[in-house]
Amino acid sequence: MTTKRKKSVGANKAVKVALLGFGTVGGSVARVLAASRFPDVQLTHIFNRNVDRKRSSEAAKAVSASVVWTDNIDVILRSDVDVVVELMGGLNPVEGWLRKALVAGKSVVTANKQLIAYRGTGLAKIAAQHNLHLLHGAAVAGGVPVIPGMLQGLCGDQVTRLSGIVNGTCNYILSRMEAGADYATVLEDAQQLGYAESDPSADVDGYDARAKLCILSRIAMHAELDPDAVAIQTISAIEAIDFSYAKELNCTIRQVSRAELDGKLMHARVAPMLVPLASPMAWSHGTQNMVVVSGRFGGDVVFSGHGAGGEPTAVAVVSDLLAVAQDCRTVQLPVRRREVTGDFLAPHYLRFVVDDKPGIVSAISGALSKVGANIDSLLQRRGYPKHRLPFVVTTEPCLSSTIERALASVARMDCMLEKPLCLQMLEVEDKAE
Amino acid sequence: MTTKRKKSVGANKAVKVALLGFGTVGGSVARVLAASRFPDVQLTHIFNRNVDRKRSSEAAKAVSASVVWTDNIDVILRSDVDVVVELMGGLNPVEGWLRKALVAGKSVVTANKQLIAYRGTGLAKIAAQHNLHLLHGAAVAGGVPVIPGMLQGLCGDQVTRLSGIVNGTCNYILSRMEAGADYATVLEDAQQLGYAESDPSADVDGYDARAKLCILSRIAMHAELDPDAVAIQTISAIEAIDFSYAKELNCTIRQVSRAELDGKLMHARVAPMLVPLASPMAWSHGTQNMVVVSGRFGGDVVFSGHGAGGEPTAVAVVSDLLAVAQDCRTVQLPVRRREVTGDFLAPHYLRFVVDDKPGIVSAISGALSKVGANIDSLLQRRGYPKHRLPFVVTTEPCLSSTIERALASVARMDCMLEKPLCLQMLEVEDKAE
Repeated sequence: MTTKRKKSVGANKAVKVALLGFGTVGGSVARVLAASRFPDVQLTHIFNRNVDRKRSSEAAKAVSASVVWTDNIDVILRSDVDVVVELMGGLNPVEGWLRKALVAGKSVVTANKQLIAYRGTGLAKIAAQHNLHLLHGAAVAGGVPVIPGMLQGLCGDQVTRLSGIVNGTCNYILSRMEAGADYATVLEDAQQLGYAESDPSADVDGYDARAKLCILSRIAMHAELDPDAVAIQTISAIEAIDFSYAKELNCTIRQVSRAELDGKLMHARVAPMLVPLASPMAWSHGTQNMVVVSGRFGGDVVFSGHGAGGEPTAVAVVSDLLAVAQDCRTVQLPVRRREVTGDFLAPHYLRFVVDDKPGIVSAISGALSKVGANIDSLLQRRGYPKHRLPFVVTTEPCLSSTIERALASVARMDCMLEKPLCLQMLEVEDKAE
Repeated sequence: MTTKRKKSVGANKAVKVALLGFGTVGGSVARVLAASRFPDVQLTHIFNRNVDRKRSSEAAKAVSASVVWTDNIDVILRSDVDVVVELMGGLNPVEGWLRKALVAGKSVVTANKQLIAYRGTGLAKIAAQHNLHLLHGAAVAGGVPVIPGMLQGLCGDQVTRLSGIVNGTCNYILSRMEAGADYATVLEDAQQLGYAESDPSADVDGYDARAKLCILSRIAMHAELDPDAVAIQTISAIEAIDFSYAKELNCTIRQVSRAELDGKLMHARVAPMLVPLASPMAWSHGTQNMVVVSGRFGGDVVFSGHGAGGEPTAVAVVSDLLAVAQDCRTVQLPVRRREVTGDFLAPHYLRFVVDDKPGIVSAISGALSKVGANIDSLLQRRGYPKHRLPFVVTTEPCLSSTIERALASVARMDCMLEKPLCLQMLEVEDKAE
């Protein structure tokens, strides 16, 4: 395999860096660079809309007086900067700008998960053609070095499966609900704390985690997925009662992003799941992120830490900047396009809310047995009114698609007051001796 | 910073690899290479004593017929292999062989923690002079990519502290004891399972973990330590009663290797410690390894997984081989020699076994108050005979050296039937929101 090295950076000659976006992460990158004074890296330009407001902000005090502030992207593209750090997010107009930056000979460091999930492969090709770097360690799990850890440390394994808690907002909401709070209150708190947007859909409905799952699959399993083909399920349908039943099952509930390679087919899904309290997934509280990668030879490896926030994300960005400055490359292995299914063989948790009448359990168990799904347990707590009774059925492992067929007929029953909630249950497979 | 790239490996030209040592890990490396057939890596030589016995072993079936087997190291050193993989352990004669290999233009991949802890800096200099690789991802925590994760993913942070469970044997023993077994039985089991040597000292007394702690400190905190200067404390003094008292304190006991940079001084120690059940350290069971790295900007990052065993370790070795094959380098930051102290400011757990008489508690508390150490709790369980009474005192945070001064006088009391056991208690500092 031939890999030519980019022109080496001369001794005492730092790479010149432009930041695109001077929000929370951008300010933190400036602060980390100012605190550590890496001789290899010099911040020279900052681009932002309404740049004057940014230049007079508190965060700007960490920025050297010699830095050029601009709201004109062409100033950056025509400058002599060596690396563009993109911290703005979204596909447009950022994708076009970064293509131009690469063509102009500038390496790119980005924290933009949507961009990398949807356009990463195309951008990487342009970067390779120009012998430049395109690094995105900050795009998944902020300060948790899961991307560099997998790229260099697990390339010798055959990773077959990964699962992660990669959206801090959902984890904050669900771990607060685990402790007793209700969804609406916690979402409001999350919005006030700045963890959730005013439109929380990207987080709670799984779009953010899905982009990250696609990036992780590419790096861990060398599999290119179409993000839009990956099934997502919202966490907004989870209620207090589900945590209560989960606890009876020695589980809690987390938004889990998981992917499993089965021959040429990738099973992938972002959804709230029941996770055993004994599983690493249940360790993760608040805005923490966690990724569990399972290799054929190495077994389960767990990465966890602060997945969001300015400074943890800045650590990933600055680490990437040092890699560009020292022209460090990681192992490249061929990536293949993989078809995706959301179907998983798993035990399922089914929560019904019914106007109780004789024969309901029999009808549900009949519908399940008709598709060949075995009931593992039936949980019905005391203290709920008969006319609005929540109860839970768990199944032995079967395909999600099988369960969905059974639920389609059950959901049409008159006594069903809500759409039944169907969650996959995570099984702990790799136990230490 | 100038870094010249080694002559690039031509397309379709694999690096030629020699294995030194064909034991458990060597056999696994051969198996992983055979299973994955990386086009960049070709196993060509195997060195071992009594090579004929190895060549006819079950593990040798994964080895291609074209591979040269030898018990003569000069055959390897004079061959055209590009990389020598050292899986033998110890300083002699391995160090001399690897120096010769580097001088002969061969890169080195090793799993040898003692060699890297004691001689790593010297060997790295020779490697750099010859523009070769010296990689040792397998030297700490086997298949857990803590070394590559820190090298590339945390280089942008300022790591101030790390703690780890890096000896699988001790973790197996202590987590079995946590579940009720006694030390002697578990040690015997560990020996029969091949987790512990017939002389278990390297593991249970902390020598193995100490070497790994020095390597982690070098990579995470750019601090070069003299391994012999790092304090170690055996786990063999831990008894069932300690787990029982630990549980009352919402803790368990683990062999913890920790280092904390305080200005120019490194606090470092390998010792059994009380760790809160709520701490990631308590998650680690059996032979699992775990490392928690704390950065000024990124907070706590946790790595965990299978730290030992042939195949997990082989993943680290093969990942390093791919890095050599593709000439991938990691970020280099200047390393500084640091003085070491074993002193930590921490709460302490003190367990006494006494022939009970009035005035003992008063004497102990007097000795502690004389040095300015405050008692936090006093635990005395029912059901033990008065003439051989175990009880526990915990202190508020104070320096270990202070406690040791108090214990020196207490230990001389006639009623003391055993040397008091003194364990530091780990505090959980970085909590997720």
